[in-house]
Amino acid sequence: MIGAIEAGGTKMICAVGRSWREVRDAKKYVVTTTAPDETTTTVMEWFASQHEITPLGAIGVASFGPIDFATNSIARSTPKEAWRGVSWRDAVTNYLGPIALGFDTDTSAAGLAEWHWGAAQRRRVVVYVTIGTGIGGGLIIDGEALHGLLHPEFGHMFVPRQRGDEFAGTCPTHGDCLEGLACGLAVNRRWNGSSEQLAPEHAAWELESDYLALAMVNIIMVASPEVIVLGGGVMKVEGLMEKVRTKTRDLVAGYIAKDALSSEIDTYLVTPGLGSSSGVVGAFVLGARACRNSA
Amino acid sequence: MIGAIEAGGTKMICAVGRSWREVRDAKKYVVTTTAPDETTTTVMEWFASQHEITPLGAIGVASFGPIDFATNSIARSTPKEAWRGVSWRDAVTNYLGPIALGFDTDTSAAGLAEWHWGAAQRRRVVVYVTIGTGIGGGLIIDGEALHGLLHPEFGHMFVPRQRGDEFAGTCPTHGDCLEGLACGLAVNRRWNGSSEQLAPEHAAWELESDYLALAMVNIIMVASPEVIVLGGGVMKVEGLMEKVRTKTRDLVAGYIAKDALSSEIDTYLVTPGLGSSSGVVGAFVLGARACRNSA
Repeated sequence: MIGAIEAGGTKMICAVGRSWREVRDAKKYVVTTTAPDETTTTVMEWFASQHEITPLGAIGVASFGPIDFATNSIARSTPKEAWRGVSWRDAVTNYLGPIALGFDTDTSAAGLAEWHWGAAQRRRVVVYVTIGTGIGGGLIIDGEALHGLLHPEFGHMFVPRQRGDEFAGTCPTHGDCLEGLACGLAVNRRWNGSSEQLAPEHAAWELESDYLALAMVNIIMVASPEVIVLGGGVMKVEGLMEKVRTKTRDLVAGYIAKDALSSEIDTYLVTPGLGSSSGVVGAFVLGARACRNSA
Repeated sequence: MIGAIEAGGTKMICAVGRSWREVRDAKKYVVTTTAPDETTTTVMEWFASQHEITPLGAIGVASFGPIDFATNSIARSTPKEAWRGVSWRDAVTNYLGPIALGFDTDTSAAGLAEWHWGAAQRRRVVVYVTIGTGIGGGLIIDGEALHGLLHPEFGHMFVPRQRGDEFAGTCPTHGDCLEGLACGLAVNRRWNGSSEQLAPEHAAWELESDYLALAMVNIIMVASPEVIVLGGGVMKVEGLMEKVRTKTRDLVAGYIAKDALSSEIDTYLVTPGLGSSSGVVGAFVLGARACRNSA
């Protein structure tokens, strides 16, 4: 039995299961993300109660980032100030003892889930991007999440500002990086409202797709993925995926002479095969791999 | 004995040797790149004469891109129109018979050379970037050049235009992509002269380092390399590397909380350990690996 935590900045989604399908289909235990002590206590008490029913072999934590792999904690540079340095290793050990822990970013985990069972199966180089409150992503190579100096942070690349867009950007660190210009929070602030209330034909989505297409091109030119999975709440806006596909194709402009970037762009920029379950199923992958490695 | 060809858009550098040191130290046979037939004939006749003296076990070709791995040829989308579809497999076979051929981009090959014996030894995730007539690069993961949909093409990412810069850009496909704004050709055109004649304190290099630092940040946010090796003629300008380091550090602004991106940036953005030999030594790596794989 594996415990899976999708630890987001807004909510934590918890489940246990013996397989990815069990985790996907399980009734989730959802905790609103507040102060670290309060949140991790609520989350871990639930896992402790599950652990009493059926012992867990490992826990997988798919966390918002940046994270610190050396200590299995939230990095001290996270904009979520209260969470700086919070250790998932400690939280898990305090309630479950020295159980195996798999730990990675929520987006790398979602990418692993999409590689195993979703829209990117059997592809060598896979990118997963989520456009939600923030923008993040993972780069999966041969079924492993890329860890280099740290992990990918797609949201903090810089893209050309579109003509006439004077919005300052929302990133506390960078201002008008990609996330600052194009995350859900930026859409809300720029257009003085909730992105869910903007009609699909609103100018917001033309601008949004301009920025996202530029980000796609930059990812393609750096990492040359075989497929890009685009998830997150913002991507659910009707017609947005189609705009991003068309603009990405037009920006690449044939320089990479592959059908995937022209006639077959619909199979290159794709929605998650696991829908909104990629994150928690990704946490299951992290836990299952940690369990296997500890055996 | 391995044959090594660094096949550039301006010149082809050829050498043979039993080891990377022999190739590095060998007197090179240099052919100006003109029409494909003429150039490949001159190059291959020289290798055929070497082959008669000491039989070659393999040839490595490190070529300007984009390239087509399926056919070991120059891609049909290359801006060098005469070279579209030119097959190195055919050129090599015509003169040397069915000899083993290693083939990759010049920049991936240079990255491999730097990983083996240069400034990026034993690092898991390595980026090599060259800023010369054009801008290109390779991404080396666990000692292998990343091949996904195709190969990296760092030069064709998009970065924010700097205030006051109205230069249209030189890229025949994209106009003002990174390469269009910041390659050696772009510097020459923007400032009406030869980049070699611009003093180190010329405004050209402030602007150049702005664009290159933005490119570094984008590469860091996508691929999280442990080290970035910056080669090419433009990087030889006095003080330019230091400017790129400072601006990259300032743009990351602590978001990735690693010494490599703050106090130790001098060890993160580095010059090639093999100097100007990275390319031809990289061609040797391709040849040596092809020889091993064919054995």
